[in-house]
Amino acid sequence: MIHTVTIVGTGLIGGSFALALKNNNIATHIIGVDNNTQNLQKALEIGLVDEILNLEKAIKKSHFIYVAIPVDEAIPILKKILQLINTTQIVADAGSTKLAICEALKNETHRSNFVATHPMWGTEHSGPQAAVHNAFVGKACVICEKEKSQNSAVVLLESIYKKIGMHLVYMPAEAHDLHAAYISHLPHFISFALANTVLQKEKKETTIFEMASGGFESTVRLAKSNPAMWVPIFKQNKNNLITILDEYTHQIAQFKIALQTENYISMQSLIEAANTIKRIIK
Amino acid sequence: MIHTVTIVGTGLIGGSFALALKNNNIATHIIGVDNNTQNLQKALEIGLVDEILNLEKAIKKSHFIYVAIPVDEAIPILKKILQLINTTQIVADAGSTKLAICEALKNETHRSNFVATHPMWGTEHSGPQAAVHNAFVGKACVICEKEKSQNSAVVLLESIYKKIGMHLVYMPAEAHDLHAAYISHLPHFISFALANTVLQKEKKETTIFEMASGGFESTVRLAKSNPAMWVPIFKQNKNNLITILDEYTHQIAQFKIALQTENYISMQSLIEAANTIKRIIK
Repeated sequence: MIHTVTIVGTGLIGGSFALALKNNNIATHIIGVDNNTQNLQKALEIGLVDEILNLEKAIKKSHFIYVAIPVDEAIPILKKILQLINTTQIVADAGSTKLAICEALKNETHRSNFVATHPMWGTEHSGPQAAVHNAFVGKACVICEKEKSQNSAVVLLESIYKKIGMHLVYMPAEAHDLHAAYISHLPHFISFALANTVLQKEKKETTIFEMASGGFESTVRLAKSNPAMWVPIFKQNKNNLITILDEYTHQIAQFKIALQTENYISMQSLIEAANTIKRIIK
Repeated sequence: MIHTVTIVGTGLIGGSFALALKNNNIATHIIGVDNNTQNLQKALEIGLVDEILNLEKAIKKSHFIYVAIPVDEAIPILKKILQLINTTQIVADAGSTKLAICEALKNETHRSNFVATHPMWGTEHSGPQAAVHNAFVGKACVICEKEKSQNSAVVLLESIYKKIGMHLVYMPAEAHDLHAAYISHLPHFISFALANTVLQKEKKETTIFEMASGGFESTVRLAKSNPAMWVPIFKQNKNNLITILDEYTHQIAQFKIALQTENYISMQSLIEAANTIKRIIK
């Protein structure tokens, strides 16, 4: 049990994390910090946080500070926090990219008070109203550069994530960003591009969406995701993503070649290969 | 109420259609026909159909015959059925492509006893065990070339589809195949290609799936779909699909260019454009 926790960023992730802390009796008092005052007020109103303060005041009252804001804004805020804390306070972030953040903080005096984490959960919605109960149950949480964090900090974060239902995966920040590019960032590009392809066509074929059903819905779901969160992720993971978009385009091209050459044996093999994803996703 | 219905193809669609007919008191007796004897036996065992017969015998006993098999096999079977029926019997299909089927049947003596339909529902699963109750509720059903079907046949199909919870959309077969290519066939290619991209990478990065979460799952869901159903669809809709894969690849390329040129204003605009899909998909 921690007495007071500060959550910086009271949106989808920070809000859901706040609910998980309360529901699992991990924290008794949660302070919300957000530069979007409307969202912050909403978070208080709907009970995600118990109090709202500015960053400096919030840090003074908190044993643990959790940062869940877009990954570009997270860097200066985390630097500031690490400069304001004392040696007993613990800080973690929930960012979807880890290398840029770890690099930016590596020379901070209080680096070892910080744990770089990425709970692998999200939805296409954003803001405090998007927060949900039991969000993280059964999902993986990645911890990067564990060796650069002091033991008490790692133990606290491991304990919190396990209590809220997550299992832990450890890897270097580079490996995290590469894997996240395939497993999370690429699906977002795919979905944005699908939406844009069909919306372009809709300009001429106005009734095109009349037939939309479950298959379209699930593939296009991520296209509703917030650019304020995603543009900074893509920016920080640019090099991996350029390579992966080429690999993906190559896979799409295999299907086009099979069609053009009417090689339906090849088409069958491509689909059978894809079907083996059943091994991973039940 | 129809006394006896024959369903040719007792898999995902035929099986779910059988359940819908029974649950809505549309048919009292359902005969299953399937050249996969194992599936047929299973369909009887789990109560999707009441009797199993060969096609000739089943037709003799049925007022209405519904064909839900892969679109390549559907053409010769539908020709055979239209040659075996009398002038009062009614036939419909559930195929995901409509132009090739309509073209193939246009000169049949009993063409007007046939209604070309496509209920816009499916899952990534197949076989009789994949059949579900209330499958079609709230979904669209497309009827093509209505003017080539006799009024009694159109009225029967409209009545059945409405009773099982669908709303009807009418369009020429060409328009159906074009729209289906964007809304249904493209999402399948996208998902197959995503699975193959990540599975290729997994050969070197064996832990890549440890981080897989909801976003990956929904985008890759369709990659589990059955090639026996999908290869014939892609074959029949080849020309539309080659063009659409180019359009989609162009949209993916826009994201790659934005990354390469570090044009994050363009990236923001691309995502904002994609976000307008919220207008269609809640």
